[in-house]
Amino acid sequence: MNVFVVGANGQIGQHLVHLLAIHPEHHVKAMVRTEEQLEKLKKSGIEGVVANLEGTVDELVEAAKGCDAIVFTAGSGGSTGHDKTLLVDLDGAVKTLEAAEKLGVERFVMVSAIQAHHRENWSEAIKPYFVAKHYADRFVEASSLNYSIIRPGGLTNESGTGQITVAENLTRNTIPREDVASTIVQVLTDRHTYRRSFDLVSGDQSIEEAIKSL
Amino acid sequence: MNVFVVGANGQIGQHLVHLLAIHPEHHVKAMVRTEEQLEKLKKSGIEGVVANLEGTVDELVEAAKGCDAIVFTAGSGGSTGHDKTLLVDLDGAVKTLEAAEKLGVERFVMVSAIQAHHRENWSEAIKPYFVAKHYADRFVEASSLNYSIIRPGGLTNESGTGQITVAENLTRNTIPREDVASTIVQVLTDRHTYRRSFDLVSGDQSIEEAIKSL
Repeated sequence: MNVFVVGANGQIGQHLVHLLAIHPEHHVKAMVRTEEQLEKLKKSGIEGVVANLEGTVDELVEAAKGCDAIVFTAGSGGSTGHDKTLLVDLDGAVKTLEAAEKLGVERFVMVSAIQAHHRENWSEAIKPYFVAKHYADRFVEASSLNYSIIRPGGLTNESGTGQITVAENLTRNTIPREDVASTIVQVLTDRHTYRRSFDLVSGDQSIEEAIKSL
Repeated sequence: MNVFVVGANGQIGQHLVHLLAIHPEHHVKAMVRTEEQLEKLKKSGIEGVVANLEGTVDELVEAAKGCDAIVFTAGSGGSTGHDKTLLVDLDGAVKTLEAAEKLGVERFVMVSAIQAHHRENWSEAIKPYFVAKHYADRFVEASSLNYSIIRPGGLTNESGTGQITVAENLTRNTIPREDVASTIVQVLTDRHTYRRSFDLVSGDQSIEEAIKSL
């Protein structure tokens, strides 16, 4: 599969790009924001393209041409203002979805946040972020794409354990970013996860088993 | 018509509430955020209710009970952060829409912003605000309600002239808030405006003529 990764220089994105790069069945094209990031990818032998989520849908269409699947794992991050939450996490996500629709790319994997579908479970401190993720997810679910929405719990930088729990609703818990990336790879080609949305935290099943049990 | 006004203490809202209060065919219920605002309404003989757009959908359902139409003219305003843009202009609007759906209130008038439907026409300075309005409007348009989305140009505090221009697409221009309020009143009972969205600026037609010509 030719996989286009949006947010490839992000913390989940970097894990994901390298997992896809060594995967025998996949080819990865990494979307990054700067020439420096592109150079870094080149040195690792990874194909990249410079594009910006604050640009137009047509720019995203141009960047994603030739791919069979798009993974959206971009995030404006905690160090920027809520203006970027609106421009990147919401508008950037929906523009990526619109680019997928324009290109006829049917497979779309969205990285969201645990319980983004239930307003009553949004922690007060990052409620505006949940608003952006919630509405982006609703647009994905209203589309005709073969989407999967993965809603991980609190992200950590610990090494992956390969052991997860997935379900439509889970209690907030943590998960290493590396395990989120591995879960995305597992989900990508699994038709069983088409048009499904689920929470994801560390657990006691292998990623393959956990996704099968969904 | 029993009209529920969300954002009744806002600058358009205050004009609107008073126009509806003196209108022979309407009864108005004004939603405000504080007891002080409620007292102020009472002194003018206007029915009000205290509720918050950052609360739950059920709270909005409770507040809007008994109405036949809902007007959403709330806005977080320029003096608060973009966190409020997400919580009020986007999530607050969609929660109001969901409350209308729960109550079976079919008439919904949304006050949006000129060209909110065209990303390429969003001014850089208030782009995040346009993102919130754009997606709120898309949810309104995807609903099954008899909505009208009014997208006024730059709002001024000048006295209304009663002369406007409306069309699906207009060049940015200004309009007094009082004329926006008068346009809302005209639109409310006009079935011709059901499931329609349009830009609104000052012009050379009476409000009645302009709306008829849509």
